[in-house]
Amino acid sequence: MAGLVRVDGERLTADQRELSAFGRTPSGGVSRTSYSPADLDARRWFAARCTDAGLSVRTDGLGNVMVRLSPPGADPSRPAVWTGSHLDSVPEGGGYDGAAGVLSGLECLRRLAEERVALPRPVQLVVFADEEGCYHHLFGSTGLTRGFTSEQLAGRRGRDGTRLVDALIAAGLDPDAAARTGISPAEVHAYVELHIEQGPVLESAGIDIGVVTSIVGIGGGTVRFTGRADHAGTTPMPARRDALRAAGHFLTRLPAAAAGVSEQAVITCGLIDVTPAATNVVPATAELQLDYRDTDMSRMQALADAIVRTAQAAAQECTLTAEVHFEDTVEPVLLDAGVEDVVEQSAASLGYSSRRMPSGAGHDAQNMARIARAGMIFVPSAGGRSHTKEEYTSPGDLERGANVLLETLTRLARDD
Amino acid sequence: MAGLVRVDGERLTADQRELSAFGRTPSGGVSRTSYSPADLDARRWFAARCTDAGLSVRTDGLGNVMVRLSPPGADPSRPAVWTGSHLDSVPEGGGYDGAAGVLSGLECLRRLAEERVALPRPVQLVVFADEEGCYHHLFGSTGLTRGFTSEQLAGRRGRDGTRLVDALIAAGLDPDAAARTGISPAEVHAYVELHIEQGPVLESAGIDIGVVTSIVGIGGGTVRFTGRADHAGTTPMPARRDALRAAGHFLTRLPAAAAGVSEQAVITCGLIDVTPAATNVVPATAELQLDYRDTDMSRMQALADAIVRTAQAAAQECTLTAEVHFEDTVEPVLLDAGVEDVVEQSAASLGYSSRRMPSGAGHDAQNMARIARAGMIFVPSAGGRSHTKEEYTSPGDLERGANVLLETLTRLARDD
Repeated sequence: MAGLVRVDGERLTADQRELSAFGRTPSGGVSRTSYSPADLDARRWFAARCTDAGLSVRTDGLGNVMVRLSPPGADPSRPAVWTGSHLDSVPEGGGYDGAAGVLSGLECLRRLAEERVALPRPVQLVVFADEEGCYHHLFGSTGLTRGFTSEQLAGRRGRDGTRLVDALIAAGLDPDAAARTGISPAEVHAYVELHIEQGPVLESAGIDIGVVTSIVGIGGGTVRFTGRADHAGTTPMPARRDALRAAGHFLTRLPAAAAGVSEQAVITCGLIDVTPAATNVVPATAELQLDYRDTDMSRMQALADAIVRTAQAAAQECTLTAEVHFEDTVEPVLLDAGVEDVVEQSAASLGYSSRRMPSGAGHDAQNMARIARAGMIFVPSAGGRSHTKEEYTSPGDLERGANVLLETLTRLARDD
Repeated sequence: MAGLVRVDGERLTADQRELSAFGRTPSGGVSRTSYSPADLDARRWFAARCTDAGLSVRTDGLGNVMVRLSPPGADPSRPAVWTGSHLDSVPEGGGYDGAAGVLSGLECLRRLAEERVALPRPVQLVVFADEEGCYHHLFGSTGLTRGFTSEQLAGRRGRDGTRLVDALIAAGLDPDAAARTGISPAEVHAYVELHIEQGPVLESAGIDIGVVTSIVGIGGGTVRFTGRADHAGTTPMPARRDALRAAGHFLTRLPAAAAGVSEQAVITCGLIDVTPAATNVVPATAELQLDYRDTDMSRMQALADAIVRTAQAAAQECTLTAEVHFEDTVEPVLLDAGVEDVVEQSAASLGYSSRRMPSGAGHDAQNMARIARAGMIFVPSAGGRSHTKEEYTSPGDLERGANVLLETLTRLARDD
């Protein structure tokens, strides 16, 4: 009975530890940015684990890795049940984000193979390239679900200025094939991704499993305050048109602006730049990069409006001007209610507590949701921390999540 | 009668225009940073003007330039009357700051020489090197009045990382001589510097001449807020310990903190840095560089205290910590009341309006005040602007200032 198959928690934990060594930094974090030597080493290690388990591995032109299991009794022409996540990390990130989902998926395929579990559908694991977006937000899954033209790829550069094409070639990938990659909706019966929560909700409520209902929309934008550069010694305080002072007013009001839209709404400013950037000159300009999120598209618009109002009020108080530019919004995504039910039932069948919840972070699942029924399984993040060396999910929590993933994949693979 | 000697306003204006060409930038500003090719070209041009006027020029190891006039009847052993300022500019500065004082001084010496005005004391013009502090705050005048040891000079680097010693050699100067330069107090009967106001006071009050009573003290420091890096999507707004939000609270309260100390007190934050500096991560740290000024040393201390209190209050509100580090303070300087009287009487004798006022900017005069009686003459700055391409003083204002300087130097040179 497939219902009795469980993951090997010790092997999963050992894999997690081994994988965390790739890109380990002196401070104890993990820097495994896309196509970096550490990322390529991790990919090689991962491919070897797959080969050890008798699983076939294929890499596309963007660096997405496909691992396929054809269980006994599976009809290879039927849409497969997919799982996946990513191996890349942010700079100075941790050893769980992305890796937890990839290793849990590997463990599921391994256990199904070891136990020779008969299933009517193939099971497919995908490692998406560059989820952290060195080259594009959710780069690999965007390429697989929407595609990039050769022209789009040719013009693209990474955050550090590297040309994408050069990075692909250095990684041994084929830029021509990169423009040809893609998944047909007909290949996917359903997609389920396990991921660490990256927030404090599960841990503080003492819940084992998060059943993700939606993924937030993400908006980006720039607020630029323009005042006047003045001498720091000779310009009385009331005569100044200090762009950084206006930025200060704006920043202090962001919590109220978000709270005015919804309880889940968040607005973050993670980058600020002033000019002329001299200690003895009053800043003429202050430019703030914003990230704002909500699970509902109309509330995303309300957030954007609140940002504009807040910037204009701050500018007015400091007798200067504010310009706000928004980038294209990543729309919020509702996950599949049917897949949610299977995840919830799988958790319950294993005796684990679960809670339905939105995801505040973006995930490859939001791209997969465009072409297929998609769901996500969250496991607790200690202290809610992620993208930092303090990122941690206990072996027990990870094992419970992987068991829910295994049960979910098994049930979905048995769908008619 | 020397009282009838006046400067040649047209020649002074022509000199100002010619000098502004050295270091002219595409945007119309002037970038003539210390020992740069533009600075060296300007020095050569200036030396040629002196030679044309029959004035002898000497340059010390730091690049300070001395121009001496021995008027008919002068006793070369008597302490001279000095004037001076600087030729270097900030990056993208204007064509008046420093240059106005040097060219007015040159014009005074030239007119005294042309008219063969008999004076009992020599008159000396000094062009101080690196007033804008690429290598040290008021570098040249600090070297002349306090001296630097060879060791201090050997270890010093510029803002761009250049070794001072390399810059001196490239400028054709002698680093060994740089450690030996200095002015003995016995050489200086009095020092008077003409400078643009760099603030809006004279222009807005319609006053011709500022009689400077004191030069502000300048304090520098760093405020570092340390919170926690968190995921921008998964960390609810109230759960954040956002270092940039704390910086925002701090910045908005600086005007009140300064006003609580005195009307002249100013606090400026011209530089801010956050880490980890990613759009999707809540800032863990925000570091602000501060500049604070007042004309009274006890108020300088009160300002420092207010900065600490304001930082701690902002940190507390955001549940994080603040550390404040102060650098060595440049103490405020009172200028000489006797010299002020002579400047005021000179302005009145020429029919110009004047007002006593403090200087909010630092000047070489504050170093000269340590070894001699010192005074300053301010001329109006259009719109109060300085250190920018908009820096401007009208030909009439500059001519009036130079006439007050000429009259003041003449009267001081006749002192017993």
